[in-house]
Amino acid sequence: MAERNIKLVLAYDGTDFFGWQLQRTGRTVQGVMQEGLSRMHGHPVRIVAAGRTDAGVHATGQVANFLSSLDSIASARFREAVNSYLPRDVRVLSSEEVSARFHARKSARLRVYRYYIARGPVLLPHLRNYRLWVRRDLDVTRLNGMAAALVGEHDFTCFSAEGDANFSKVRRLDVSAFHVEGDTLVYTVAASSFLWKMVRTIIGTLLMLEEQGLGARELRVIMEAGQRSNAGGTASPSGLFLERVVYDAGCEESLEDPEPAG
Amino acid sequence: MAERNIKLVLAYDGTDFFGWQLQRTGRTVQGVMQEGLSRMHGHPVRIVAAGRTDAGVHATGQVANFLSSLDSIASARFREAVNSYLPRDVRVLSSEEVSARFHARKSARLRVYRYYIARGPVLLPHLRNYRLWVRRDLDVTRLNGMAAALVGEHDFTCFSAEGDANFSKVRRLDVSAFHVEGDTLVYTVAASSFLWKMVRTIIGTLLMLEEQGLGARELRVIMEAGQRSNAGGTASPSGLFLERVVYDAGCEESLEDPEPAG
Repeated sequence: MAERNIKLVLAYDGTDFFGWQLQRTGRTVQGVMQEGLSRMHGHPVRIVAAGRTDAGVHATGQVANFLSSLDSIASARFREAVNSYLPRDVRVLSSEEVSARFHARKSARLRVYRYYIARGPVLLPHLRNYRLWVRRDLDVTRLNGMAAALVGEHDFTCFSAEGDANFSKVRRLDVSAFHVEGDTLVYTVAASSFLWKMVRTIIGTLLMLEEQGLGARELRVIMEAGQRSNAGGTASPSGLFLERVVYDAGCEESLEDPEPAG
Repeated sequence: MAERNIKLVLAYDGTDFFGWQLQRTGRTVQGVMQEGLSRMHGHPVRIVAAGRTDAGVHATGQVANFLSSLDSIASARFREAVNSYLPRDVRVLSSEEVSARFHARKSARLRVYRYYIARGPVLLPHLRNYRLWVRRDLDVTRLNGMAAALVGEHDFTCFSAEGDANFSKVRRLDVSAFHVEGDTLVYTVAASSFLWKMVRTIIGTLLMLEEQGLGARELRVIMEAGQRSNAGGTASPSGLFLERVVYDAGCEESLEDPEPAG
């Protein structure tokens, strides 16, 4: 019997997880997903996600897929069914059946992250796990000047973490911009893929330069030198959310048999 | 030596507290405040708050006061000093020295609460302790019709909890209205004082009537009958925040020697 390929959109509170990826010890999102799916199916089930988020990083639109042997559940019904096997800090937002060629990680065209920064003298306690707290006033125009300098294709070696296994450190940012939402400053960044800890290092570096009264020119110097040690610290995972993953409308087909452009 | 009367504005995440008020067992906000203040002062310190919030209820603008024997700390500096003795889920937002006659509970003129309701098929996990989740669509106009019917002076016996020690169940609501903030429905209610669990019972009742397609007329029937059993359930504390406490500008004076009105 052919197995069904089920795509899930997931949200989770990363606070009590050691990230997405299964580890020998420590609670992970992949771990609790696989545990729930395996109990639901009565046999081991493996799941793949678009973004392997780190410990403490949250998601409001992670995408994952798994193969299901269950043929009695309507595809949209997997949402509720799977949720009944999950702890409260992970939720399936939607479910659908997709082509066998769909792969949540390999088929992803764009990953959209948001980083939330709370400004002011005190961080409200109920937001403490979901915001980076910056006491000082922030110069949003200066930050946006630097954010704009990151758009496009660049060698991001200076923002890559030690232990990053990627051969090429060249990435292409399609969106990189700050906007203000009430008391919160929100950084949105989108790319087909990122280096390990890249978004948090970008935030750490932009805040460092902003505090020093520097801007896009000094940022470019750091990027050209390509030394991680010149960049800023890795900002807290608390502020980071994987917001959305974008796939081509017909991504399943286009993976193997691209149509000639009209 | 005269003790200084210090007023604090407090925020807390109520999730891991058995409410404000000190109990024999169980972690309370008053308990951790008094523990921190006592360690800071080197002797027992008692603190009084404007609102004795229940287990799970949050605050972004609770007000409290205590008497301090420390004369070397500038009054605005108590904020940082006290924070260094507190756990991360309680924060002092501001501190100031006030007249000896100021009493956080007795001098309060208006308590403002907000109740946050998330609508939609799934509650985002990082909001699970800070919202009431309602799956169905809500008729905001209908809810606001009922909310408006609560404004003014009424006998709120039908919304009072068993065990409420208040002699009179008459209260006067100055504000009672819903507004929409993105995906969230927010109920704001303000009064000089409330009955025990009154706000959560109002929410439970309004949602019950809304679901039944009923409105302000049926709400008035329930209020006139004065039976708790006719009202709806007590809504989850997760959605409830004590947002603000308002004092008269010169409340310290006005407590004992009211000036004749100009």
